Amino acid sequence: MPGIFRELENVRHQLENHYRDMQDIEFTIQQGKLYMLQTRTGKRTAHAALQIAVDMANEGLISKSQALMRLKPDLIDQLLHPTLDSKAKKTVIAKGLPASPGAAAGKVVFSADEAVTRSENGDKVILVRIETSPDDIHGLHAAEGVLTTRGGMTSHAAVVARGMGRPCVAGAGEVKVDYSSASFEVGDVVVREGQLVTIDGVTGEVMLGEVPTVPPQLSGAFGTVMSWADEFRTMQVRANAETPADARQAKEFGCEGIGLVRTEHMFFEGGRIVAMRQMILASDKTDRQAALDKLLAMQREDITELFRIMDGLPVTVRLLDPPLHEFIPHTEAEMGLVAKAAGVPLDRVRRRASELQEANPMLGHRGCRLAITYPEICEMQARAIFEAAAEVGCSAKKTPVAEVMVPLVSTLEELVQLKKVIEATAQQVQKERGMKFTYRVGTMVELPRAALQAGRLAEQAEFFSFGTNDLTQTTYGLSRDDAGAFLPEYKAKGIVEQDPFVSLDQEGVGELIQIAVERGRRSRSGMKMGICGEHGGDPASIEFCEKTGLDYVSCSPFRVPIARLAAAQAALKSQGEKALQASTKAARPRQQRFGPW
Amino acid sequence: MPGIFRELENVRHQLENHYRDMQDIEFTIQQGKLYMLQTRTGKRTAHAALQIAVDMANEGLISKSQALMRLKPDLIDQLLHPTLDSKAKKTVIAKGLPASPGAAAGKVVFSADEAVTRSENGDKVILVRIETSPDDIHGLHAAEGVLTTRGGMTSHAAVVARGMGRPCVAGAGEVKVDYSSASFEVGDVVVREGQLVTIDGVTGEVMLGEVPTVPPQLSGAFGTVMSWADEFRTMQVRANAETPADARQAKEFGCEGIGLVRTEHMFFEGGRIVAMRQMILASDKTDRQAALDKLLAMQREDITELFRIMDGLPVTVRLLDPPLHEFIPHTEAEMGLVAKAAGVPLDRVRRRASELQEANPMLGHRGCRLAITYPEICEMQARAIFEAAAEVGCSAKKTPVAEVMVPLVSTLEELVQLKKVIEATAQQVQKERGMKFTYRVGTMVELPRAALQAGRLAEQAEFFSFGTNDLTQTTYGLSRDDAGAFLPEYKAKGIVEQDPFVSLDQEGVGELIQIAVERGRRSRSGMKMGICGEHGGDPASIEFCEKTGLDYVSCSPFRVPIARLAAAQAALKSQGEKALQASTKAARPRQQRFGPW
Repeated sequence: MPGIFRELENVRHQLENHYRDMQDIEFTIQQGKLYMLQTRTGKRTAHAALQIAVDMANEGLISKSQALMRLKPDLIDQLLHPTLDSKAKKTVIAKGLPASPGAAAGKVVFSADEAVTRSENGDKVILVRIETSPDDIHGLHAAEGVLTTRGGMTSHAAVVARGMGRPCVAGAGEVKVDYSSASFEVGDVVVREGQLVTIDGVTGEVMLGEVPTVPPQLSGAFGTVMSWADEFRTMQVRANAETPADARQAKEFGCEGIGLVRTEHMFFEGGRIVAMRQMILASDKTDRQAALDKLLAMQREDITELFRIMDGLPVTVRLLDPPLHEFIPHTEAEMGLVAKAAGVPLDRVRRRASELQEANPMLGHRGCRLAITYPEICEMQARAIFEAAAEVGCSAKKTPVAEVMVPLVSTLEELVQLKKVIEATAQQVQKERGMKFTYRVGTMVELPRAALQAGRLAEQAEFFSFGTNDLTQTTYGLSRDDAGAFLPEYKAKGIVEQDPFVSLDQEGVGELIQIAVERGRRSRSGMKMGICGEHGGDPASIEFCEKTGLDYVSCSPFRVPIARLAAAQAALKSQGEKALQASTKAARPRQQRFGPW
Repeated sequence: MPGIFRELENVRHQLENHYRDMQDIEFTIQQGKLYMLQTRTGKRTAHAALQIAVDMANEGLISKSQALMRLKPDLIDQLLHPTLDSKAKKTVIAKGLPASPGAAAGKVVFSADEAVTRSENGDKVILVRIETSPDDIHGLHAAEGVLTTRGGMTSHAAVVARGMGRPCVAGAGEVKVDYSSASFEVGDVVVREGQLVTIDGVTGEVMLGEVPTVPPQLSGAFGTVMSWADEFRTMQVRANAETPADARQAKEFGCEGIGLVRTEHMFFEGGRIVAMRQMILASDKTDRQAALDKLLAMQREDITELFRIMDGLPVTVRLLDPPLHEFIPHTEAEMGLVAKAAGVPLDRVRRRASELQEANPMLGHRGCRLAITYPEICEMQARAIFEAAAEVGCSAKKTPVAEVMVPLVSTLEELVQLKKVIEATAQQVQKERGMKFTYRVGTMVELPRAALQAGRLAEQAEFFSFGTNDLTQTTYGLSRDDAGAFLPEYKAKGIVEQDPFVSLDQEGVGELIQIAVERGRRSRSGMKMGICGEHGGDPASIEFCEKTGLDYVSCSPFRVPIARLAAAQAALKSQGEKALQASTKAARPRQQRFGPW
């Protein structure tokens, strides 16, 4: 039917010109007549999608902004990580939540220490835990990926893995881990320590054996898309980062500063936790000061490094946030080791651990409450930040911008008292060094009361950063560590559309943010405001931030490219169809119904 | 100096007439001349204060409303409980928080079981615990008073003791309890089980031995003041009560219904906790239904009794609120006993306890989240309420008013789904019994999101009850069980004026309540709203409720008389000085400076 074939070719050409995109066409031929049944934009891999969009814009078929609007920001994520070889065979044994993208294979280990030992011997390992805690951080660094049987998209393992760009499958409930026998069961399958498994953080699949992966390919199109996104977006994109590796990664991905340095993460590794524990377990001021001095030196060094990497871009350092008991283990055996390492009697560790125990740690003695009751910790941290600023200010070409951020504020008076301590320290360091440096003091807005009191807080705070993880927890009265027990059923029953820890609840949490933005800026005109919760990397939440008038979003390093694209799309959308149409040669017509041609 | 004495008598007479109150006068005589230095209203006991106010009003010296405004509502509390004989000698060994008024002496016991055993043998006992949990409820009932070494004014022990009208000294940190040796130490003093101690819940003092007490004297003046208060107040006063004893006590104190029945309290006692645990540990539907049927019978009986006592006054029954793990103990030994009692393998108890464990129980799988995931529990409770209403409706003169209250709501959809279950049950029971009864379905507003979404919730809810305990916890991000670690320092440093769990935070939590009242009534005109947190018995918070336009406050039975007086004062204040002045023969002049007469 060469006549019909030509006719089909013409229609295809016309449709693809019309829609300015590759089409997936359905048709039928009946009694020698061509009927077009359906046409839709053809599916493609992330890599192809970027290439096509860039090519079409370069050929003038679509505008740059149209090219950007066509790309789903989450596509980008797949480009940044290894993926499973689509041709490889796989034996899926379980499925969990796709908690951090990428695929990885390795030998199963059940403890962070074992992960470190094996990886030092050259093995690739997958860390399998019921759930992870800050104590496991060295194991997460050593492993290729992590699998947990409990916890959701915002569990410790998921958040840390996304931050590191490691694949993570979380909350795989069918997998029954037995630490004592170093094995896990899933149905009839038993997997022992040292056996190979593969996890896919995009699908949540857990597979037996090693499935081959394909490395990420950051093609030229990726760079082009990013540079176009930067032309259109109005919000800044910063990164949440503590380690030099993360900060460098984020910089490579185009972040414009660090929006959140979680200083506590700096205290969990290696010898640092020993000094931290000595500080917590100190019996008198001399002991405590000695421990604080050790911490000061480490913290200053860390922050100096971050200032250097950021090279003049702002770095927001948050004061110590978690409750102190997170630094003290709870089993007798571990407490014994802590006592030995810290050089204190076991009984003191036991007593202190029991004193520090909390019914609801999330709502406990943490955040600025620590800085109020232990002003010496706040002073040490402020000093570390400012000494680092002085240090880098002397030697680097670009002067660092230090932003000190106070967490978990609920009343103006907390901020008044802590700002005094921070400013006094800044002045003292400036005097000691005989130099000035740039710094700002701001606050997290992560409690409903802080949002409501934003007008008053803005009298003291020079910037706001919305901590939407905690703000979601308190606004909903919902612990993200415990929500896994009922959130899936809530979704299934249509009570929530999506996990509010993944995409911002715009009605509830969002209203508090709007109130805070409005009251804060009424009190301090043009006040800088951003978001540094996990939502900072979620496209729908980024669109909300744009609408609400925030100045920046801050997210995990591996979400930075996604946030850049999402911010551009948000800006384009908020400029309305006008901008889109003006930059297009012809407006896109409405969908047409098809009859025989 | 008889001349000067006469002069002084004249001045005294003039001053007391002028201020219409007994005066505490300071004067000096120099060189034969009388100088008046200061005058102020004289201090008096609670008992005398009421008598004087009533006498003066009856004599026409002051108006009824003036008499009411003169009385501090908290004075009333002292009248309702035994007090220490002021002449008796006392050996104070420690001081804690004055967590529940009244004084009591008894033999020290260290466990709830021991309290029950000894009190059954005719001993009066004081229960001493590091802290109490719902498991100790039978011990709290059996004891004359309770002393805890941990926890604040709103710890479990404090709240339960106030509800029962038992004295409580909480958070006496100097007292070091050693359960294993059944003794406590404070300084050099060691007190063993069976030794006599006395506690004073008004001062927080702990004393060695038995200090004699004076029983409460509810004089005629008390009744007069209460009836006058009822003339002026506009808000209703209800009680939080579950047991018949509490409900009767509250009725005696003049409550106008029950604002909060915490159904979970009905599941902790005696054989009930066994049925509750069987329900939680059930391995299949048949087992679970059998346990639920047992609970249904008990619950129906309890609620029937409450309806009978309230005799036509409304009774608001809240659905199960705490997370299920509160019903399962955590030590191996206790789990063994539970397994035996519930007739299930120990391993299942262990596994279920570990499954139910939560990082932040306050923000966990509780409230309506339980009713959503276990609709059969919601159905059982609704059935118990409605069968009780039908039962009492048939036999009593006055028909009961059943209000079903859904806790911890954060989204409209939760309420939509649960209201369906509750209404279907109501219709079914009405059909089965061939009769109609009055019921309403409403919701707690105890999460910031619920307050913000009040307009939508009011589409479904027929009444709101503000759960200000949880609303304070979430608005501040502050666990009341853990706040003790830093709240005292916060007060000392002037960051908070008072414990926000004792007196409502009007700026933060209060704004959310105002928002909810406004949005709720905009959506459902004239909607009935009340408060059922601990704040319902706090005079300053009651004044806030009056200003905000709430219809009722609900508080512990022993706070009902206080709330009646405070509500009258709030109404008088909000009517402004006008009402006060109109009802007074002469306006009270401003303070005068004194010279020689």
